Amino acid sequence: MIIGVDIGGTKVAAGLVDGAGEISSKTRVPMVSTGDAETGFAAVKAAVASIFEAAPEARGALKGIGICSPGPLDPKTGVVLNPPNVPCWRNFPLAAATERAFGVAARIDNDANAAGLAEVLWGAASGYRNVFYATLGTGIGTGIVFDKRIYHGRTGSAAEGGHVTIDYRGPVCGCGKHGCIEALCSGPAIAMRARGMLASDGNSKILELAGGEAARVRAEHVGQAWRAGDALAKRVLEETAHLLAIWLGNIIDILEPDVMVVGGGVAELMSAFFERILEEIPAWSINSRAGEIPLVMARYGADAGIAGAAALCGEM
Amino acid sequence: MIIGVDIGGTKVAAGLVDGAGEISSKTRVPMVSTGDAETGFAAVKAAVASIFEAAPEARGALKGIGICSPGPLDPKTGVVLNPPNVPCWRNFPLAAATERAFGVAARIDNDANAAGLAEVLWGAASGYRNVFYATLGTGIGTGIVFDKRIYHGRTGSAAEGGHVTIDYRGPVCGCGKHGCIEALCSGPAIAMRARGMLASDGNSKILELAGGEAARVRAEHVGQAWRAGDALAKRVLEETAHLLAIWLGNIIDILEPDVMVVGGGVAELMSAFFERILEEIPAWSINSRAGEIPLVMARYGADAGIAGAAALCGEM
Repeated sequence: MIIGVDIGGTKVAAGLVDGAGEISSKTRVPMVSTGDAETGFAAVKAAVASIFEAAPEARGALKGIGICSPGPLDPKTGVVLNPPNVPCWRNFPLAAATERAFGVAARIDNDANAAGLAEVLWGAASGYRNVFYATLGTGIGTGIVFDKRIYHGRTGSAAEGGHVTIDYRGPVCGCGKHGCIEALCSGPAIAMRARGMLASDGNSKILELAGGEAARVRAEHVGQAWRAGDALAKRVLEETAHLLAIWLGNIIDILEPDVMVVGGGVAELMSAFFERILEEIPAWSINSRAGEIPLVMARYGADAGIAGAAALCGEM
Repeated sequence: MIIGVDIGGTKVAAGLVDGAGEISSKTRVPMVSTGDAETGFAAVKAAVASIFEAAPEARGALKGIGICSPGPLDPKTGVVLNPPNVPCWRNFPLAAATERAFGVAARIDNDANAAGLAEVLWGAASGYRNVFYATLGTGIGTGIVFDKRIYHGRTGSAAEGGHVTIDYRGPVCGCGKHGCIEALCSGPAIAMRARGMLASDGNSKILELAGGEAARVRAEHVGQAWRAGDALAKRVLEETAHLLAIWLGNIIDILEPDVMVVGGGVAELMSAFFERILEEIPAWSINSRAGEIPLVMARYGADAGIAGAAALCGEM
């Protein structure tokens, strides 16, 4: 048994994860991200305590505690460096504090790396050696896992595939670069594309779903309109599929993974377009066998952070 | 002692390489790339025989023969698959044929992968764990080496970083994609950029160096003109540096290497701009420490193929 803890700026989610990656005894407590480091850490302790309360047998059987924490962080030393979303943890030794508090081994990493590892150990990437994972949502996070080990790069900041630009003169991304795939295919980017198309062609169900206000259009509205047969919504999602194919072509030309696993709300929204993406990838990769690489949906959805956190201790 | 053999479409270069990566007894024979497989292989045998003739003592001390071959090929099985530049070697077991002919172990790989490994074992990437190597010339080839081992991906076709697009609506590349860095920063791409600028501003030394004909402009002319203080040549090379910084930002966001090593004619041409590239990279990477990653010139120039081929046997 492993406890997986998923820390965000406002909440801590946690769960008990077994050797098959099944999650039980899920809990959720508020995160306190300002003040001193101990105050923030108290939220982590409360989440773990709540699991022990729900599953007292876990206390004796616990192999470790894995934690997804906002970064930047150093997965090797277990230290959280200077996360903008959790300012109370400047150079905070989160793994060591957890080991001391609960007397078991602890590991930390960022959520996309961890979720990628969970897919390798227990999910859609099981059995594959070279794995590219992406979570497509409000942002785009990615993870690279080779031989069941997260690839970290020089300081633990590798696998930021969401910030690969495919259009350096394109729209500016939150990171400051232009034309990052996150600026083109995240949920907000899809909504912005829809708004742009609506401006020249207002005849779409999308606007109705957004209460008649273009400014309120979200990616979900595009998905709903598409399912209802809306032509403009279809064009928005086809363009998104086109851009994802270009991006995945770049990823294949660098990594030639054995599998590409995608999760998150936008992955679900785009799942009906996976075949279209796969058909287009060969035009955007020099790899003559690019079309053989599967593009599959992640096993874990909203629980990816908990499963991922547990996966960090999964090989212990 | 290892023999490194570098096969091109028209020539076979080879040399004897010692444990420090020093090359001696270099030779060069014509390659025969049409006809039957044995005819092509005879050129490899002739190159090796010529080395044994120049250095008879190598015969007894030989640890292995490494070969850079035109691809696609399978570095694991040592089979050359269906190289467009060497049509005589369709599914030819080059490594096995070499082992049989000379009674020593043999390894094959593509030239950029091999050259990257040579830089790790004996050159500019010595002592680094996660290495990105690029050869910038008529084309752009790249190699990825982790912990002194070439990263091959699913079928041996990973690390085609020259075909990462940073401008999917940009100029078409020889590979069929648009806006690949090869289509933007290879020697021919630099020459094309110069020709484009000359068309609107003919006042440049470049044209004079090319004998007054824009169609004859090559990247070397741009370099010569720049060294002579030519303003247009400076603009061409600054734009090239800008695009290389964007590309390396993408590479860092995926791989976060410990070092970036570049070789080849265009790398030499651009070497005076390395500082400029390094200054610009942080604007094109989400990695807050991107600016710490060194960008260095490769040890091996024209002999990169021989050294790389030998490196394939360097860990045996």
